[in-house]
Amino acid sequence: MKPIRVAVAGANGRMGREVVKMLVQDETFEFVRGISRTQGGKDVGESIGLGSLGVTFSDSLESALLENRPDVLVDFTIPAAVKRHAEIALEMGVRPVVGTTGLAEGEIAELARLSEERRVGAVIAPNFAIGAVLMMMFAARAAKYFPHVEIIEMHHDRKLDAPSGTSLKTAEMIARNRPEIRQGHPEEKETLEGARGGYRHGFRIHSIRLPGMVAHQEVIFGGPGQTLTLRHDSIHRESFMPGVKLAIQKVMNLDRLVYGLEHLLEE
Amino acid sequence: MKPIRVAVAGANGRMGREVVKMLVQDETFEFVRGISRTQGGKDVGESIGLGSLGVTFSDSLESALLENRPDVLVDFTIPAAVKRHAEIALEMGVRPVVGTTGLAEGEIAELARLSEERRVGAVIAPNFAIGAVLMMMFAARAAKYFPHVEIIEMHHDRKLDAPSGTSLKTAEMIARNRPEIRQGHPEEKETLEGARGGYRHGFRIHSIRLPGMVAHQEVIFGGPGQTLTLRHDSIHRESFMPGVKLAIQKVMNLDRLVYGLEHLLEE
Amino acid sequence: MKPIRVAVAGANGRMGREVVKMLVQDETFEFVRGISRTQGGKDVGESIGLGSLGVTFSDSLESALLENRPDVLVDFTIPAAVKRHAEIALEMGVRPVVGTTGLAEGEIAELARLSEERRVGAVIAPNFAIGAVLMMMFAARAAKYFPHVEIIEMHHDRKLDAPSGTSLKTAEMIARNRPEIRQGHPEEKETLEGARGGYRHGFRIHSIRLPGMVAHQEVIFGGPGQTLTLRHDSIHRESFMPGVKLAIQKVMNLDRLVYGLEHLLEE
Amino acid sequence: MKPIRVAVAGANGRMGREVVKMLVQDETFEFVRGISRTQGGKDVGESIGLGSLGVTFSDSLESALLENRPDVLVDFTIPAAVKRHAEIALEMGVRPVVGTTGLAEGEIAELARLSEERRVGAVIAPNFAIGAVLMMMFAARAAKYFPHVEIIEMHHDRKLDAPSGTSLKTAEMIARNRPEIRQGHPEEKETLEGARGGYRHGFRIHSIRLPGMVAHQEVIFGGPGQTLTLRHDSIHRESFMPGVKLAIQKVMNLDRLVYGLEHLLEE
Repeated sequence: MKPIRVAVAGANGRMGREVVKMLVQDETFEFVRGISRTQGGKDVGESIGLGSLGVTFSDSLESALLENRPDVLVDFTIPAAVKRHAEIALEMGVRPVVGTTGLAEGEIAELARLSEERRVGAVIAPNFAIGAVLMMMFAARAAKYFPHVEIIEMHHDRKLDAPSGTSLKTAEMIARNRPEIRQGHPEEKETLEGARGGYRHGFRIHSIRLPGMVAHQEVIFGGPGQTLTLRHDSIHRESFMPGVKLAIQKVMNLDRLVYGLEHLLEE
Repeated sequence: MKPIRVAVAGANGRMGREVVKMLVQDETFEFVRGISRTQGGKDVGESIGLGSLGVTFSDSLESALLENRPDVLVDFTIPAAVKRHAEIALEMGVRPVVGTTGLAEGEIAELARLSEERRVGAVIAPNFAIGAVLMMMFAARAAKYFPHVEIIEMHHDRKLDAPSGTSLKTAEMIARNRPEIRQGHPEEKETLEGARGGYRHGFRIHSIRLPGMVAHQEVIFGGPGQTLTLRHDSIHRESFMPGVKLAIQKVMNLDRLVYGLEHLLEE
Repeated sequence: MKPIRVAVAGANGRMGREVVKMLVQDETFEFVRGISRTQGGKDVGESIGLGSLGVTFSDSLESALLENRPDVLVDFTIPAAVKRHAEIALEMGVRPVVGTTGLAEGEIAELARLSEERRVGAVIAPNFAIGAVLMMMFAARAAKYFPHVEIIEMHHDRKLDAPSGTSLKTAEMIARNRPEIRQGHPEEKETLEGARGGYRHGFRIHSIRLPGMVAHQEVIFGGPGQTLTLRHDSIHRESFMPGVKLAIQKVMNLDRLVYGLEHLLEE
Repeated sequence: MKPIRVAVAGANGRMGREVVKMLVQDETFEFVRGISRTQGGKDVGESIGLGSLGVTFSDSLESALLENRPDVLVDFTIPAAVKRHAEIALEMGVRPVVGTTGLAEGEIAELARLSEERRVGAVIAPNFAIGAVLMMMFAARAAKYFPHVEIIEMHHDRKLDAPSGTSLKTAEMIARNRPEIRQGHPEEKETLEGARGGYRHGFRIHSIRLPGMVAHQEVIFGGPGQTLTLRHDSIHRESFMPGVKLAIQKVMNLDRLVYGLEHLLEE
């Protein structure tokens, strides 16, 4: 089987580097071009500490897609750039695989329309960690049988916002599968404000912030005499690579846009 | 809606008591008769410490089913008795819900045949803890994406056998969904025999036995930069009741035998 | 060695029963009398489901201490009664072992004075679970090296107050051993109010309430690249018995009042 | 206060780099020289990616100590070199802080004698992760009250030996504080060989090996109705730096050799 030809926008960014590293180690892929406004002409491998790869950066997405004819464009650049990149790719028949949480619903809808018109597959996912996505899917499933639930998410103490995006997404997926009951003792008293956590969809989310942590989440379901706990621990951004790999493989057989890795796992 | 009429074999046993307690607290059920060879004629509630329920024990299953016309017979008696009970029930048009790990494959097949002939539903399950069953189902699912896995099961220190039945069942369900790779470093050395646990289907099972524990299991999946952990904790046999309740409700609409609670959860 | 003679006030209460059960199973103790205002004259064993013990309830503490000459009085009755009981015991030369969180500082001080005057030992402890006390002591110790910490306490959902008394006591012990730094990102934003938990002594306490839980606490310390977690799980009130046993043994050699089990563990 | 002058042997190794990074960020220290047989003359900062530090590598330990007069020599080089380095340092009045598990008891004794003769402090530690050392100390302490215990250690799957050195050290420290009882049911049956783990000092050690893990250990103590769990997670070698820092500070006031970080924590 011929390897899938992949170009990477933002190949010198933190996620981009991991993607290039993964691509060059896997024979089913061929890394054909890096795109970077600032690194044009340089060898991608040398720039990111892998040694010469014989693949250079282009400073123009269009030229790169024209010259190198990739099958797929992986894009982990900033939200502001991502939409325009995806449009260019779709119009040139190149399937975009995009990792961002920054797109508005309207923007996603526009890309979906373009993808369908051109019959060119596309994948956009806010989270490429397969373990995290499975945790969310399992949580949604368990909620049907265990309506009592709390979420504890734990991150490093340089994180600005609490609770995490993943915990809010999980809460939303759980909420769809259970009646909104208000948990805990009806006359519960919080003698220390905030102790019971943040209240959402009838249940609680708790955010821990400590040095020595990276990105972790526990969803605990309780019923009489038993608890069921789903936990995901991510300690390095290489944890996203199996999800990126899966998306590249699956997008080859799509003729529309898929939003969310969970829809690639559901088969 | 009319309540479902339920008789309980072994209503004075440890599980039977919990079942009766659950039935009388739930308006969608009507507890109509207890069956016990030794307690014939006594009030069930008084025998098991719930106060008079106005429902007596019968010392004959046939008579009880004839007189009280239950819709469902719940049976948590000893394996030796269970098969005969289920046959009697099926022949009299009463749906059996049976909790036992002691039936041979051949016996289950016979009951399945009888159930189908008579078009009377039946449920047999080795484990009624919905949390444990979900953990096993999720583990089987996760194994598709995370072939690296280990199981840690923890029980009280009066347990005789290691590893637990649930861990072996989980291992089997995982094995069906992943290639049998041999995990760990190929040149791994066990400087203390047994430290790496029991080897099964290419991966490891570890059994902890300590006072202060009841019945717990953790399934840990590992991939680059991430782990996914599924954990079930059971501290009381009331944890089986939501599963029993579900089985009673579902068996009403079955016309064949279902083995394993997971098949009632899959819809 | 002669067994230690023990009387139990509130022997028919939930904790009292466990104490009696422990005493009669241990040859180093002799259970000599139960005290109960309502059960006077009855056999203690029969009242609490252990079968006849040949030991009756007295409805008067004074008479019981006079008649049976115990070495120790174990008292798990209500806070309102406990102080008067301890005074009577100390004045009659009987060492009180008291489990309550309800005494005011002034009341404890008065009992301490009386104990010293009479040179009769006494133990009062808000928590007899040795594991919980060790967790608190270890937490206080770890805080010297890990100033970044959060507490997660988990209880059944019928608990009224949050956070738990144990978590507040732990927080206080930690606070004594670390500078009050404010943890987390200085510009941290709580997009869901309460998500970051209750703020106390510069760090956070989180309270989980779910069915299927009993009484659990986790203290997590974080430093660069590492975390240290101390966890206590209590699933039954028998968990308090080793602490009660230790207190009975130690009080025999005391000539003053000791408040808090930790001071009996420190040797 | 004048900063402590520190030289680093093996400053271009994996641990050496972390040490240099820590030293240059902390005003109470002055990094005065790197030692490396292969990097002589080069700027240390440039070699290890920190930018020019104005501190060069020496290829001779003696010259470096003579020229730069450090107070302390930090040494994380290979076991074969470590002993000779420490001898040279002690003879030249420089306090060695050594991280290695490779020294024989006899070698440590010799260094201890030399340290005492010269009245020059020294610290040798097999583990500089303060969290791991606290976990071991707490475990030893808890074993006095909880004789029932099991250890679960978890590492990445490229680790060769099982169980880990830390788990064996922990087991030894626990064993000193509890009678050697044989845990578990006396008639326990292992239906899968190895499931119950490795047997040592009367209890069990379990070794998990999975991708996505780094270095983790759990010590679980069980008693009636309760468990106490001590857990350490290390995900990066920067976790050793607070211990190295503490050792450098403490060695300044020592006039003998201390083996093991625990003895610096005990005050």
